Amino acid sequence: MIKKVNLTEALSSFSEHWTPKIAGELNRQYVKLAKLKGEFVWHKHDHEDELFLVIKGQLVIELRDESITLSKGEMVIIPKGIEHKPIAENEVEVLLFEPISTVNTGEVDSNLKQEKLDWL
Amino acid sequence: MIKKVNLTEALSSFSEHWTPKIAGELNRQYVKLAKLKGEFVWHKHDHEDELFLVIKGQLVIELRDESITLSKGEMVIIPKGIEHKPIAENEVEVLLFEPISTVNTGEVDSNLKQEKLDWL
Repeated sequence: MIKKVNLTEALSSFSEHWTPKIAGELNRQYVKLAKLKGEFVWHKHDHEDELFLVIKGQLVIELRDESITLSKGEMVIIPKGIEHKPIAENEVEVLLFEPISTVNTGEVDSNLKQEKLDWL
Repeated sequence: MIKKVNLTEALSSFSEHWTPKIAGELNRQYVKLAKLKGEFVWHKHDHEDELFLVIKGQLVIELRDESITLSKGEMVIIPKGIEHKPIAENEVEVLLFEPISTVNTGEVDSNLKQEKLDWL
């Protein structure tokens, strides 16, 4: 069955931070939704590019040589191998696009969970 | 260089309908932006799933056995092999996510162009 996803509704179905939820799958890629607040760790993904699209709020992505500030409706693609550190001073809602194989922190160990939204 | 993309600004940089512009590339997938108005043809993609996310306006995607109406902030994934027909009564702005290999109409011939946004 083909089911549409309302991003705002989907994001309202959970409240945890730094726990991306799988909102869709296509071509061995996941669309994920996440709420972020605070500072994440510096990390990189050796084999996967990662897309961040801000749905609500403002997200800073620090790179080693620059800092990118994303507001609602703005996206950025972090190429594989590039170290980055997401920072959300206030809660931000984001859509992520990543290959199925991606682990959030790259080589950095963490307790991050990755779950499918219940209603999928 | 890593550059963010403001979806609204990017969409304001062109006006043609049914001519998806490449707004980003990751993991051999394209993020495309398009303005749609009117009815497209029935088609399917034999090997690729396709994501539609509505940025502005309302898009109807007819399937052979149902019809899905997407408003702003809603997305749907059309699995490979599924015939679909996008219809936009009024102009709609969408973000598409497709493998690099996807041709818009699947097996149906068309004059659709696919260009990178100038500023990318």
